[in-house]
Amino acid sequence: MLSFESDYTTGCHPMILERLSETNLISQPGYGFDEYCLSAAEKIKKECGCPDAEVEFLAGGTQTNQVVIASMTMDGDGIISADTGHINGHEAGAIELTGHKVFGLKHTDGKISASQVSDFVDAYYADANFEHMVRPAMVYISHPTEYGTLYSKKELSELSTVCREKNLVLFLDGARLGYGLMSYKTDVSLKDIAALTDVFYIGGTKVGALCGEAVVFTHSGKPERFLARKKQRGALLAKGRLLGLQFDTLFTDGLYYKIARNAIDRAEDLKALLVKKGYKFFMDSPTNQQFVVVDKKKYEEMKKVVRTGFWENVDKDHVAIRFATSWCTTKEDIEAIEEVL
Amino acid sequence: MLSFESDYTTGCHPMILERLSETNLISQPGYGFDEYCLSAAEKIKKECGCPDAEVEFLAGGTQTNQVVIASMTMDGDGIISADTGHINGHEAGAIELTGHKVFGLKHTDGKISASQVSDFVDAYYADANFEHMVRPAMVYISHPTEYGTLYSKKELSELSTVCREKNLVLFLDGARLGYGLMSYKTDVSLKDIAALTDVFYIGGTKVGALCGEAVVFTHSGKPERFLARKKQRGALLAKGRLLGLQFDTLFTDGLYYKIARNAIDRAEDLKALLVKKGYKFFMDSPTNQQFVVVDKKKYEEMKKVVRTGFWENVDKDHVAIRFATSWCTTKEDIEAIEEVL
Amino acid sequence: MLSFESDYTTGCHPMILERLSETNLISQPGYGFDEYCLSAAEKIKKECGCPDAEVEFLAGGTQTNQVVIASMTMDGDGIISADTGHINGHEAGAIELTGHKVFGLKHTDGKISASQVSDFVDAYYADANFEHMVRPAMVYISHPTEYGTLYSKKELSELSTVCREKNLVLFLDGARLGYGLMSYKTDVSLKDIAALTDVFYIGGTKVGALCGEAVVFTHSGKPERFLARKKQRGALLAKGRLLGLQFDTLFTDGLYYKIARNAIDRAEDLKALLVKKGYKFFMDSPTNQQFVVVDKKKYEEMKKVVRTGFWENVDKDHVAIRFATSWCTTKEDIEAIEEVL
Amino acid sequence: MLSFESDYTTGCHPMILERLSETNLISQPGYGFDEYCLSAAEKIKKECGCPDAEVEFLAGGTQTNQVVIASMTMDGDGIISADTGHINGHEAGAIELTGHKVFGLKHTDGKISASQVSDFVDAYYADANFEHMVRPAMVYISHPTEYGTLYSKKELSELSTVCREKNLVLFLDGARLGYGLMSYKTDVSLKDIAALTDVFYIGGTKVGALCGEAVVFTHSGKPERFLARKKQRGALLAKGRLLGLQFDTLFTDGLYYKIARNAIDRAEDLKALLVKKGYKFFMDSPTNQQFVVVDKKKYEEMKKVVRTGFWENVDKDHVAIRFATSWCTTKEDIEAIEEVL
Repeated sequence: MLSFESDYTTGCHPMILERLSETNLISQPGYGFDEYCLSAAEKIKKECGCPDAEVEFLAGGTQTNQVVIASMTMDGDGIISADTGHINGHEAGAIELTGHKVFGLKHTDGKISASQVSDFVDAYYADANFEHMVRPAMVYISHPTEYGTLYSKKELSELSTVCREKNLVLFLDGARLGYGLMSYKTDVSLKDIAALTDVFYIGGTKVGALCGEAVVFTHSGKPERFLARKKQRGALLAKGRLLGLQFDTLFTDGLYYKIARNAIDRAEDLKALLVKKGYKFFMDSPTNQQFVVVDKKKYEEMKKVVRTGFWENVDKDHVAIRFATSWCTTKEDIEAIEEVL
Repeated sequence: MLSFESDYTTGCHPMILERLSETNLISQPGYGFDEYCLSAAEKIKKECGCPDAEVEFLAGGTQTNQVVIASMTMDGDGIISADTGHINGHEAGAIELTGHKVFGLKHTDGKISASQVSDFVDAYYADANFEHMVRPAMVYISHPTEYGTLYSKKELSELSTVCREKNLVLFLDGARLGYGLMSYKTDVSLKDIAALTDVFYIGGTKVGALCGEAVVFTHSGKPERFLARKKQRGALLAKGRLLGLQFDTLFTDGLYYKIARNAIDRAEDLKALLVKKGYKFFMDSPTNQQFVVVDKKKYEEMKKVVRTGFWENVDKDHVAIRFATSWCTTKEDIEAIEEVL
Repeated sequence: MLSFESDYTTGCHPMILERLSETNLISQPGYGFDEYCLSAAEKIKKECGCPDAEVEFLAGGTQTNQVVIASMTMDGDGIISADTGHINGHEAGAIELTGHKVFGLKHTDGKISASQVSDFVDAYYADANFEHMVRPAMVYISHPTEYGTLYSKKELSELSTVCREKNLVLFLDGARLGYGLMSYKTDVSLKDIAALTDVFYIGGTKVGALCGEAVVFTHSGKPERFLARKKQRGALLAKGRLLGLQFDTLFTDGLYYKIARNAIDRAEDLKALLVKKGYKFFMDSPTNQQFVVVDKKKYEEMKKVVRTGFWENVDKDHVAIRFATSWCTTKEDIEAIEEVL
Repeated sequence: MLSFESDYTTGCHPMILERLSETNLISQPGYGFDEYCLSAAEKIKKECGCPDAEVEFLAGGTQTNQVVIASMTMDGDGIISADTGHINGHEAGAIELTGHKVFGLKHTDGKISASQVSDFVDAYYADANFEHMVRPAMVYISHPTEYGTLYSKKELSELSTVCREKNLVLFLDGARLGYGLMSYKTDVSLKDIAALTDVFYIGGTKVGALCGEAVVFTHSGKPERFLARKKQRGALLAKGRLLGLQFDTLFTDGLYYKIARNAIDRAEDLKALLVKKGYKFFMDSPTNQQFVVVDKKKYEEMKKVVRTGFWENVDKDHVAIRFATSWCTTKEDIEAIEEVL
């Protein structure tokens, strides 16, 4: 059975396992004070071009969204997101459990624009009752988005500007950030993201780690008592070394970029294949997720030989499905899938 | 200065003050165990035609929404509402602070339909990831709505049916219920509401009381430990008698209906006046709130002599404003306003 | 049946009802922006000798404790209290629902001392793991305490000093403050409290109002967005005038003090009576609550003619009971009770 | 530098790394539906002698305590614990953030007794105001306790009986369970724990895993929508395989027991050494944690060559410190420490 249903179905890059073995018996302090966390944080700060950034490691994406949102906004504040944003209903209430409302603005290709944000916030303050209302306090964007699309540098700069003008925290969910950075269709670098956002994270779980997300507070804005903030959300691992070591490995010799680039290259191969075979694309994605529309009968047949992700019903007879490549997708996998498409 | 900006700008019906005086020195148990609460609950159950209903008194609308939602759904569940619903962003995060997401469906005249609810819930369960998502667990409707409009008996029955089919609690916010019941354009009675919903409340604050809402759990569904549920939300008054006595008064000799009818009659007078003067209506309301579109210059002039509620900017030159009548609006008030319209 | 079981079994001082009637039809803005709230706040600030204080009105004690604690400390912080403090388990989880732990220190006569607080906080910071622990962020005291006892000015000053040294908010729960201020055994004035605490409240519900507590942020420390903070806890009344007018009445011509003094005088009468009759006191209280130990048989007899508050089982044969006087206890009530003691 | 400060300073048992490598490229479903989770759950159920138990995997101890408590009790309920229990102040507010109060009963050697629980609950229900109070709903015990001590089978049975009588959930925190099971001084087996508790967890993080705790709902009591419950607390890993595979490894061929036994044996060696050298024990522990009292000067010297855990100041001149052995402590480590003691 071929597996293209997501980028988290296998383990991790072998170099991570190797380094886990090498360091296994070295005694280290717990809770993120180990040397791997410290080293990884330094490497990430350097990659970001932000010497005064602060880097923290968490285990997964929903956890990260919850901890960041809870610690950077006031109780009862609202978070502006695309309606397709992961935090908008897809995290089982994790955001609401921290006392926050998600405002889902209508997306375009999974994205929201600076003018949408601006209009929304202006409308809020124009309302005579705004003091009684949920205050927009943060903008949440995903890059790549849930549809695999990307913000351009111009779009991101505009969002950044409007957030600073309107006193909103700009938070970028980079659960699949590597695939965004390594896309052939992006003009946004890690340094750009660090310069333009207040906080973002570099996804590990979906980009070759066993687990882990690296949160970057870009300009010294780490919330007070952040260790307690993590612990009180159940997000502080005793063996923080597990997270630190993985990111230290991924940010040594550009491994993170290399493996993300592999996923992009295989996605480009796959896209070419899909085009060649005449598939209709549901969404044009420049990253590792490719969405196509297939008829249900075809889909049932495909299921026998390849796992893909069901996305949504398009009409009575068609569904949208997702193919995801990853750090470990091989040319052989692409060749194998050619036969069944 | 004439005052038409809302239905909560004055005190309460004089009969309430009279009874407060009469009963003032009679010693009563605290926390809602006084004889007035007990008597009011019995009267309300009778009016509802629900001998097995359970009635509880709370102080205000947002508090009631919060306590009811928190105690009748699971942590992290979602509440389906019209996007114009009061709970959808207008309660400063009160609902989110209980760990619940509000799903704002697009309203029509302030209302949502059974088919909207049905489609939304079906889409939820059709999603392969539904177990990861915020589960719709309750439908919240306002009657009258935030626009003064009303559900028909047919609409309400359909919502009730879909809620029972889809395992959703149906909660009706009746902050202005009296004005709905006494409208000349409704076919929905208190008994209908009690029969069709799981829980609703009869608004006191906006219908002649100093404060207070009477929550009716229509078929014995009062959540376990409800007293503690109220107290843990800061909603349990030591002198619960204040709430009980007001509702006992309002539900003696039909006072609640009479004073609501006065508001309706004065609203009809006002509407006739607005029609006569050629005002354009923003929304056709059969209750005590009347919305018209005026140009901004006119609005500035009006402000000097009459207080109305600013609703929203309609376009560059026009605004929508609200006139609200109440239990104490008099024919003289209407005559007085005629001159300034 | 004589009623001495608590100070909230009757309505309110008649002057309040009179003023409610007088002002009933005067149109006022909602949500605490009415002229009575404004006037009451000014009067209270003056009584407190704090021109830069900020005064807010809430409906009840638990609600006030919840809103104040939630808005003046960080999520997950801890509140130091006497183990007998009302917030320590007696509010059905209201404090915990805001994400706060109550540290119950062993009380002496319902009180805690500055040295207890100091030791507790020192021990916290001395713990190598303090960053993983619930941080003490506030001291909560009741004055009068739950046992009717009072802090001396010296005790209060010491607590104030230690709170400033240790960076703790000092919060005084004055649900029965009037009875404390009017005790013949106190050297603590309202001005002292305003000078020594960061926030406190003047209880209305138990001192002659129908409902209501006046929160005083003593040195301009009102939390940001406090209106939203109130609303999101269900604590913002549309007819805020109900609270404002009551406090405006109570703080006109010293009414609050006069009616509190009546309760104290009647409590002194009662105490003399209890002494004369040879009752054993459970606790020596200088305020309106008097606690005595009676044998169970006697208690059963008393119950037939007078309602008192059951406090606790003292031993197999004895119980502690509470007599509470109030603003409306009369000399006749005391004479009547003499016969049954 | 010798390291005895805790049992989570190194990585994991090498067999885990080996199996991570072996299975690394095998595609598996996410979120705990992988074959390793399923297999591990079956093995654990078998070890527990509970065919109808349900097993779930979480990443760490505080997270597990939070998710279990939040999902098995009502909002605002209280949890009975020893005052030394980890949840009582040592988790940065994680428990309080779920809206729960921890009642800290006075410990004896880190334990609480059935009679303490019984008395506490009886006193609660005897209080006339119990409906206004935080309701005790669960008993939380640690086994081994935070002091390394163990409940006897008799003590555990009595707690179990009282919990069933009083309608309390019995929850056993087994963060270090392996060391308890393998102690030479215990009569409590895994089957006993499964039979006597409602829910417990088998600690991985501190017993040879990189991370992970296996929660066992002993008699089919897994809360409704548990996957969502995990996700909404940020506790659902995309690559759930990481947890499943570790427990599958630990519960294959008794590895969990073997490595726990190593820690016990080394602790016995260490204890013998400490006795021989005349150290005074702070607490008599039959598990992998050994507490001794040393004078501060000695402690400063020791710090230069061995890391231990600072426990508390005993008096002006003495401190209590903890030595912890683990799955990977060797005889050579013990020999090495002999020289510096």
